Amino acid sequence: MKLQDSSTPPSSDTLMAALADRFTTVRRETEAWVKHLEAGDFVLQSMPDASPIGWHLAHTTWFFEEFLLGALNPNYTVFHPRFQFLFNSYYDAVGERVARHRRGMLTRPGAPEILKYRAHVNERVLDLLSTLTGAAQASAIKVIGIGIQHEQQHQELMATDLKHGFAQNPLLPHLVPPNPAKDPQTAFITGPLAFESFPEAVHHIGIDTQGSAPTADSFAFDNEGPKHRVLIEAFELACRPVTNREWIAFIEAGGYERPDHWLSAGWARANESDDPWEAPLYWRRNEQLEWVHFTAQGEVPVDPEGTVTHISYYEADAYARWSGCRLPTEFEWEVACTSQRLGAPGQFRESGTFHPGPAAHAGSGLHRMLGDTWEWTSSAYAAYPRFAVDAGALGEYNGKFMSGQFILRGGSCASPESHIRPTYRNFFPPDARWQFSGLRLARHVHE
Amino acid sequence: MKLQDSSTPPSSDTLMAALADRFTTVRRETEAWVKHLEAGDFVLQSMPDASPIGWHLAHTTWFFEEFLLGALNPNYTVFHPRFQFLFNSYYDAVGERVARHRRGMLTRPGAPEILKYRAHVNERVLDLLSTLTGAAQASAIKVIGIGIQHEQQHQELMATDLKHGFAQNPLLPHLVPPNPAKDPQTAFITGPLAFESFPEAVHHIGIDTQGSAPTADSFAFDNEGPKHRVLIEAFELACRPVTNREWIAFIEAGGYERPDHWLSAGWARANESDDPWEAPLYWRRNEQLEWVHFTAQGEVPVDPEGTVTHISYYEADAYARWSGCRLPTEFEWEVACTSQRLGAPGQFRESGTFHPGPAAHAGSGLHRMLGDTWEWTSSAYAAYPRFAVDAGALGEYNGKFMSGQFILRGGSCASPESHIRPTYRNFFPPDARWQFSGLRLARHVHE
Amino acid sequence: MKLQDSSTPPSSDTLMAALADRFTTVRRETEAWVKHLEAGDFVLQSMPDASPIGWHLAHTTWFFEEFLLGALNPNYTVFHPRFQFLFNSYYDAVGERVARHRRGMLTRPGAPEILKYRAHVNERVLDLLSTLTGAAQASAIKVIGIGIQHEQQHQELMATDLKHGFAQNPLLPHLVPPNPAKDPQTAFITGPLAFESFPEAVHHIGIDTQGSAPTADSFAFDNEGPKHRVLIEAFELACRPVTNREWIAFIEAGGYERPDHWLSAGWARANESDDPWEAPLYWRRNEQLEWVHFTAQGEVPVDPEGTVTHISYYEADAYARWSGCRLPTEFEWEVACTSQRLGAPGQFRESGTFHPGPAAHAGSGLHRMLGDTWEWTSSAYAAYPRFAVDAGALGEYNGKFMSGQFILRGGSCASPESHIRPTYRNFFPPDARWQFSGLRLARHVHE
Amino acid sequence: MKLQDSSTPPSSDTLMAALADRFTTVRRETEAWVKHLEAGDFVLQSMPDASPIGWHLAHTTWFFEEFLLGALNPNYTVFHPRFQFLFNSYYDAVGERVARHRRGMLTRPGAPEILKYRAHVNERVLDLLSTLTGAAQASAIKVIGIGIQHEQQHQELMATDLKHGFAQNPLLPHLVPPNPAKDPQTAFITGPLAFESFPEAVHHIGIDTQGSAPTADSFAFDNEGPKHRVLIEAFELACRPVTNREWIAFIEAGGYERPDHWLSAGWARANESDDPWEAPLYWRRNEQLEWVHFTAQGEVPVDPEGTVTHISYYEADAYARWSGCRLPTEFEWEVACTSQRLGAPGQFRESGTFHPGPAAHAGSGLHRMLGDTWEWTSSAYAAYPRFAVDAGALGEYNGKFMSGQFILRGGSCASPESHIRPTYRNFFPPDARWQFSGLRLARHVHE
Repeated sequence: MKLQDSSTPPSSDTLMAALADRFTTVRRETEAWVKHLEAGDFVLQSMPDASPIGWHLAHTTWFFEEFLLGALNPNYTVFHPRFQFLFNSYYDAVGERVARHRRGMLTRPGAPEILKYRAHVNERVLDLLSTLTGAAQASAIKVIGIGIQHEQQHQELMATDLKHGFAQNPLLPHLVPPNPAKDPQTAFITGPLAFESFPEAVHHIGIDTQGSAPTADSFAFDNEGPKHRVLIEAFELACRPVTNREWIAFIEAGGYERPDHWLSAGWARANESDDPWEAPLYWRRNEQLEWVHFTAQGEVPVDPEGTVTHISYYEADAYARWSGCRLPTEFEWEVACTSQRLGAPGQFRESGTFHPGPAAHAGSGLHRMLGDTWEWTSSAYAAYPRFAVDAGALGEYNGKFMSGQFILRGGSCASPESHIRPTYRNFFPPDARWQFSGLRLARHVHE
Repeated sequence: MKLQDSSTPPSSDTLMAALADRFTTVRRETEAWVKHLEAGDFVLQSMPDASPIGWHLAHTTWFFEEFLLGALNPNYTVFHPRFQFLFNSYYDAVGERVARHRRGMLTRPGAPEILKYRAHVNERVLDLLSTLTGAAQASAIKVIGIGIQHEQQHQELMATDLKHGFAQNPLLPHLVPPNPAKDPQTAFITGPLAFESFPEAVHHIGIDTQGSAPTADSFAFDNEGPKHRVLIEAFELACRPVTNREWIAFIEAGGYERPDHWLSAGWARANESDDPWEAPLYWRRNEQLEWVHFTAQGEVPVDPEGTVTHISYYEADAYARWSGCRLPTEFEWEVACTSQRLGAPGQFRESGTFHPGPAAHAGSGLHRMLGDTWEWTSSAYAAYPRFAVDAGALGEYNGKFMSGQFILRGGSCASPESHIRPTYRNFFPPDARWQFSGLRLARHVHE
Repeated sequence: MKLQDSSTPPSSDTLMAALADRFTTVRRETEAWVKHLEAGDFVLQSMPDASPIGWHLAHTTWFFEEFLLGALNPNYTVFHPRFQFLFNSYYDAVGERVARHRRGMLTRPGAPEILKYRAHVNERVLDLLSTLTGAAQASAIKVIGIGIQHEQQHQELMATDLKHGFAQNPLLPHLVPPNPAKDPQTAFITGPLAFESFPEAVHHIGIDTQGSAPTADSFAFDNEGPKHRVLIEAFELACRPVTNREWIAFIEAGGYERPDHWLSAGWARANESDDPWEAPLYWRRNEQLEWVHFTAQGEVPVDPEGTVTHISYYEADAYARWSGCRLPTEFEWEVACTSQRLGAPGQFRESGTFHPGPAAHAGSGLHRMLGDTWEWTSSAYAAYPRFAVDAGALGEYNGKFMSGQFILRGGSCASPESHIRPTYRNFFPPDARWQFSGLRLARHVHE
Repeated sequence: MKLQDSSTPPSSDTLMAALADRFTTVRRETEAWVKHLEAGDFVLQSMPDASPIGWHLAHTTWFFEEFLLGALNPNYTVFHPRFQFLFNSYYDAVGERVARHRRGMLTRPGAPEILKYRAHVNERVLDLLSTLTGAAQASAIKVIGIGIQHEQQHQELMATDLKHGFAQNPLLPHLVPPNPAKDPQTAFITGPLAFESFPEAVHHIGIDTQGSAPTADSFAFDNEGPKHRVLIEAFELACRPVTNREWIAFIEAGGYERPDHWLSAGWARANESDDPWEAPLYWRRNEQLEWVHFTAQGEVPVDPEGTVTHISYYEADAYARWSGCRLPTEFEWEVACTSQRLGAPGQFRESGTFHPGPAAHAGSGLHRMLGDTWEWTSSAYAAYPRFAVDAGALGEYNGKFMSGQFILRGGSCASPESHIRPTYRNFFPPDARWQFSGLRLARHVHE
């Protein structure tokens, strides 16, 4: 991770104050979101990929304790000697840890103790920030920058993990309190699919993370760089994501019943006897054979005008082939997103709906590129040229996951708005469905 | 299930009042035990065999709702329409249910709601009891008798399941508050092993459950009868259970390293690469290579004079063969337990230690036959002659588990004292170790 | 293993000559059976429980090499230094071995080499037998007795294992050449089910294996003794096994669709999503929805008058409960089989059909107790009183399997006739279906 | 699949005769290789990824029967009606098939019958080729081209699959007869690692498979095109593959013991408790703690100067990071291979050694780019721009595997020489080790 260029660097004091503010705000937002939960929800773990809320709260705190307080404050005493073991996620350089699928067994420390841990670390971080200078300050800026982004990633995961957990409960609890005013359903009818064209060119991709002076609000992960050039053939990108109506047409055309357009691994996964796929995750037909799906506000009818989400890469790819198109590469997607053609944005975490808005839009341009639902690209997660991981445990943040995953772009209704940028590279295995993940079609230009 | 004979039946009113009292007491004891737990503990499930505390609290309540209120009160409306699905354990006749290994995902209803459910059902049960007469009253007596025993079984399981859950947590939380006064450790030295001899005879085994008038305090499960005769050859039974000191000698003699005395299936289980056995469950060597084990009061040194527990049938059987003896049959055990030779009793749930007492004893007789630790017998769990399951869902209580399990006798430090009797047949698969299960040696009489 | 009493012991020479003859005959029968197989069939392993034909041929040879030649001939050099590792089945005392599920990977030594191995060992065994005297001779008699029985057990397993392997092949190869003359189908109609009654008594069960002088043709495994007395209540036993017609009635009554009469573990097994049970093994409905089944002579219609076979203990038990009866205990079965009431025998391996004959019979008595199909009893496999395993590797023969299995009695159409006797105890886990296993009903006498 | 350009197309007759010749030759080579095998070897399947020899022989034949005879000869009657079901590999469009992991159970048809099947189809193919004209002839040329390449792919797989199968046998059979003259071991000492530099440029990658007139000896798979341009930054590529000596240094530096340089998924795989990785596949330390490995000529000492092989992508990537370099992209590799700098070639299938030669070389240039061992690239297997799968079952040949796999380039000692070309894209999952797969280092040019 390196911070972005900035032509006029702010003064150090201003920068540190801004960082402290941002730290405090993000940490507070995390806690605000769990206020309505019941005590047991804090240890709910429905699958190895999903972590309990209490664990998220503690792990994000351990991150600051380990990489900031432990690294920069020689006098710091850990809050609890076993928390490193309990709340390390995957940093091999830091040591052994609780197996991922056993996190739900950690009913102690309980939620009150974890909140005390958070308050304790918050206080020490702010203390530390107010005293650092020179190289230590630069280190702190870097680490706290990553820590804030890390916390925001977990804000999103808390929503998707808990949604998955609640979906296992026959009572189908609501993820967020009912909020009719923010009802994502709509009466709009989405128009026919239009495409924006992009000519062949050599484009710059990514951000030069080998930066100069850091700033409080510019940030990019190491895997978003180095900035480099890519030759991209002419292509077209759809003006909006695929809708539920379109997805239902795919289902009704036998999309899940015939292997024609599926990758081999996808077809095998879709037909596993103990969990076959017949529609996006959380969808089912009710007694009247209408499609309903579990959302943050409980089970509701599938809105045909809504943006399809909770689909795997395999499904996205099969749909794209079936429709005679393809998925965009992550380069094409980034080129389009940094063009001047963005239309209406989608919803973010701040909307409180935790559900994509309708795909409907007016006017030309690329609508809802950011927010609503992550968009699968055809690009396997890989290093950009000249990419090198940092030395030390933080070098494990991104680089060691570069196999078996695909890139998603654009953020979702569960992503904090300030967390998402056009160069942001999210990545998940091709069978993952519990994130808010959908697709936008692309196609070649046939001359 | 049939109630025992009773030569002078009590009046109906007295009987019903006693039953109501007993019901209230047992239900209250269940709840008293969970008062010190933290909120997250209520949904902790560490393996499919172990259920969360909240589920136990609700399931035992559902039992009365389904089999008593639902069956005998035509106007009864269920507390919640989905609770039958959530809290049915294994009654196929009652319908579908949440898969056993997913019980830990039920964070809703939360503990407060479950306690409300308990209070609601308690009140309705007492109302109902006060109004019934005739055949309905007889039915209620029978069902409430089973329900109380069922609740007591779950009181024991709550302790063993939670102990297993806590053992997964590196913080090793205490199951019960520290209580030095009741410290089970001892300075006594257990004497050499003596045996009591029993001559060959035809014995009556079991209780005649095809009984006459029921009583409030006499109870036997259906699988404890019918009473029948068994020809038992002369045998000898050890005056006390095997101790930790003796078990350590077995370990040091290579008991877990050589297949010599093991059943084939046991040896395979003991050597499974992802969870090999090298000592009883919860034992480990500390940094000084001394044996310590996780107990209800945290991790403590293994007391050599203590009674060994948390061993599987496979281990018990291997130990017995290694020592030149064998396990008793359940018939031999019952004959001995109903003889006039019982010595000092062991500890029960009421002691609050949830740990077996020392095996030390003074004087002759069969010590600690009841309490402390269940004792594995060599008898596979099977029906007694003329056994027949009841019609209806309650017929599923015991009969359908008669394959692949072995009989344990005598109760443990987690069993309520009033729940245990000489004819009581507990049963678990031969690889189960999370119950308080130990052994007592037997041998043939060589003439 | 101890040999039976014999009031007038034969001379040593006669005995040894008879033994040598019997050895030669049994060994030759094994090989005769595989003559029609194709080369690839010798390494076919369709599941871990089933071994390849080549492995059977070599393992039974290794048995004589290890326990006879290796033990009694100090100058014996093994045929191949690695064959002990390759062809030991489960004798821990002998050392490490190829994992059971990997036996099918042993394409070398090939079948010709294995037959050479057999010839080599046969010759050395006969040489040895002709020279021994005294204690060594007594040892040899004992070991060769076990070895012959062992070979016969594998003769049966070769048929059931290969049948299972062939059933995996869509071409459904025949196990034996077509033999219309021995067609097991019949036009007889089986009469209504009659029962034979037995009064309550104390019976002797088993054979006194702590015997005096051994003989060549008397043999019993160690687990058939010690002879002991059992008090058996009055019971009734069906005059014949259950037929296919009766089993189809069970199916049509929803026997496989409703849990009512099933053991819990059986119901779970029957409903495993990757291999659900809807009928006996090898049965399927053809395009006309008629029942056909794979037999040694290919797939043929199910003969309603035929004896049902290839059912698990779970199915046998469920059927028995559904019919208002129960399975007999192994003691009841043995008492019946040693009474003077035996009717028509069933078919054995010698018939060459490898399929049970029809259940039809004329006259009173207990028909087809021996041969046709093994009969599940309700008795878990356990030691008789005073049973002790022999020291040494041969002590592993039977004793270490005494958990998790049920007793079957009577032999089957794949058992050599000379191998079966009333005290013979076969044992398999309750979900095993690839043996020829059926059932005969029993019931209590209600006075 | 489309055939390559050819400026002067040969006459149709010449072309067809050449094709027929090539077909006959390749088919004959396949059979020649299995002549020394034993009968049981034909059904050996050691893991789901590896198929039995008999299956390979039949499947490659079915390929011609299904896609050539069945498609172009309206009067063709299949050799056996069930062979389509038995020997279809993964063509969903063709229908159901035997599950991959069950291919080893198909002991019928036996090898003689399969060879008859081959002869029958060969004859019919040659008959057909001699009669076709026009569009049918063009179709046949295309299909037979793919079929020959397909057969060659299976020639390679037969060697790697059988090697894996033999490695499971404690007897460690030889894959090929001993041939000291072709011993791949060497006394040469490999020199220090040199790199060739390539400047930044836009390169053409792939072959234009949308070709004009086909020829008999030009061929490319559909996934090798379309030809397109890629901007490639300056890079350096090692002059030879990594050697065993270098790999042993990696092992001794703790390469398999510390997670430092591993991908997360790779580290998890390497530490799976039932099959941990501590060296390349087939390596073990002997009693003297020297490295030996199983090769086509049995177990021999690891030659330090030999080319390392049988490593996974995960290991290749970890090694590259540990050495301060990286893997090349497939584009870099292709650019280097089509430059004029190729040095000494490696060994191919024709050498008969089935083992990579030594890495030693003299003079500059890129040595052993082709043959010896496949080289892992860092490129995930993905479609080139404008790639589209053909309609029909043959469209399933390559396109549907474009997820979860990495590209290997250059062929191996088991590849037929005529099968390999610079644009050839092989692909395997990152944990695959049973192919002859190694690596060549690359690095960025730091200006």
